[in-house]
Amino acid sequence: MTAGPRLFSILRQGAILIASIHTALDDSQLERFRADLVDRIGRDRAKGVIIDVAALDVVDSFATRTLRGIADMARLRGAQTVIVGFQPDVAFVIVQLGMDTGSLVTALDLEEGLTHLAAVTGASIGPAR
Amino acid sequence: MTAGPRLFSILRQGAILIASIHTALDDSQLERFRADLVDRIGRDRAKGVIIDVAALDVVDSFATRTLRGIADMARLRGAQTVIVGFQPDVAFVIVQLGMDTGSLVTALDLEEGLTHLAAVTGASIGPAR
Repeated sequence: MTAGPRLFSILRQGAILIASIHTALDDSQLERFRADLVDRIGRDRAKGVIIDVAALDVVDSFATRTLRGIADMARLRGAQTVIVGFQPDVAFVIVQLGMDTGSLVTALDLEEGLTHLAAVTGASIGPAR
Repeated sequence: MTAGPRLFSILRQGAILIASIHTALDDSQLERFRADLVDRIGRDRAKGVIIDVAALDVVDSFATRTLRGIADMARLRGAQTVIVGFQPDVAFVIVQLGMDTGSLVTALDLEEGLTHLAAVTGASIGPAR
């Protein structure tokens, strides 16, 4: 449906889905990302979801709310979500603007996220990457 | 008491009760479902309850609250509850409307729910279905 470069990718590693956002997404692209990801949780029977936001240098309040929404929806579908890769500047802005990140589980990077999910879901994450 | 097709079924598999809701229930039907289910927990000495909501394409706030209530009541009667089969659209609406699902334990489908209950209750779930 999209022309041009892929805006995000969703890869599967065992029972974990690894979703990487490649560039800043506008609101409708974020909604498409959410729909794709929630759909994949069911199809791939995922127990855990990692959303990698390391490529984002801006995260606004809509994006924060969408990430929270994805985490809540994933939980209703039986999967735990971890957000990884918040840049220091992004973390600064999120905190300065007082955006609500209350229920988001975060980790430093993909490796820490996988370790966390392996612990809480009991899912095997397969051989080391 | 009801005429017409059954609105829900409650089956027993070992120490687990599997309750399937077949169609959208109105508020009084939901209360009947709750009463039947909590009664069955005692009669069947259930250690776990699975409520399958895959047939529902709408879950309103009363239904969400009733499911939470059932889970809390089941816990007081000594049984763990897992809700399975939330459709993506239903999960989306629940999250968008900000319904409180805090204490609900969820899983993708019946199989995942049984695996979870077997782990937390130690109940045997019998041969694979």
